[in-house]
Amino acid sequence: MLSLPLTALITLLVLLLLFATGLNVGRARSRYGIKAPAVTGNEMFERAYRIQMNTLENAALLLPALWLYAGFIGDRGAAAMGLVWLIARVWYALAYQSNPAKRGGGFGLSVLAFAGLWIGALWGVARPLLY
Amino acid sequence: MLSLPLTALITLLVLLLLFATGLNVGRARSRYGIKAPAVTGNEMFERAYRIQMNTLENAALLLPALWLYAGFIGDRGAAAMGLVWLIARVWYALAYQSNPAKRGGGFGLSVLAFAGLWIGALWGVARPLLY
Amino acid sequence: MLSLPLTALITLLVLLLLFATGLNVGRARSRYGIKAPAVTGNEMFERAYRIQMNTLENAALLLPALWLYAGFIGDRGAAAMGLVWLIARVWYALAYQSNPAKRGGGFGLSVLAFAGLWIGALWGVARPLLY
Repeated sequence: MLSLPLTALITLLVLLLLFATGLNVGRARSRYGIKAPAVTGNEMFERAYRIQMNTLENAALLLPALWLYAGFIGDRGAAAMGLVWLIARVWYALAYQSNPAKRGGGFGLSVLAFAGLWIGALWGVARPLLY
Repeated sequence: MLSLPLTALITLLVLLLLFATGLNVGRARSRYGIKAPAVTGNEMFERAYRIQMNTLENAALLLPALWLYAGFIGDRGAAAMGLVWLIARVWYALAYQSNPAKRGGGFGLSVLAFAGLWIGALWGVARPLLY
Repeated sequence: MLSLPLTALITLLVLLLLFATGLNVGRARSRYGIKAPAVTGNEMFERAYRIQMNTLENAALLLPALWLYAGFIGDRGAAAMGLVWLIARVWYALAYQSNPAKRGGGFGLSVLAFAGLWIGALWGVARPLLY
């Protein structure tokens, strides 16, 4: 872990993004008067909630792939693709909040970054097993 | 991490399953005309969405237990139980999509695999602390 | 991993809490007659469901921060803050189930524990990068 500082740094930023999407749901609860445990009843609240859940779903894909890539291939490449993922997910969140139909660009870019990490990690993991 | 290649491989397959359950929700959105941010309104869409969420909830249990077992007990046993979990979760997803009442078998088997990893990991972690 | 046994132990307890919140949703399904894939229709069921989801959202923040703190700073401090987080989340779950308006205390304390781990981990990760 100590030899993968850039990957660790990106991970902390991913947690910050997750925390921010949760905070945003809390703010939307009070702004639009959606009392817990309800998660429906106002379009703007539902957008905030879906942004949080989709970011969580995708962070659960990203983080293991990021660390496997870092461990089996390298710290710098992992951090670079992780940074692309982060930028894509901020883009996704901002676009979704203003208009859900515009969420595709950020989502697609984040999937590309994930796919790069996943394929790289698979290569790093499987290559030694094949010999 | 480099000494746990089978566990790493299972982890990549778990990510693939998570990704597939998410893709399935996206397809169900367009097929059944459920526009974001809504996640209700069509039974078949709701099945796809619950399969994704339940798989995510259970992958969040599986992955830490898998790696703790691998680190404190061994790579092969972790990967073997992880593989059982994967098969169980594919069974769960297919059964749930056709009939939610039939989701119990795959779910139950995946809980058994998780329990095996959790108990083994606890034994591996706690034993040295007891002496 | 072998050198971070207390952090591993806390992680296993976090998984137990996540598992318990899921079990509680399953019980609420049968008690209040909410058939899958529905997740709405009864206030008490919805409380159980939101407790599970919020615990999951926050465990996804906690676990990476816990392990980064443990790896870059130390095992004991990580486990101590992880234990505070666990106690806070049990408090949150019990309070929420009886009255959602009372969930703030446990939630706030768990955020403090997370913030301590996150800031400590950032310090541990960033300090060597700055020289």
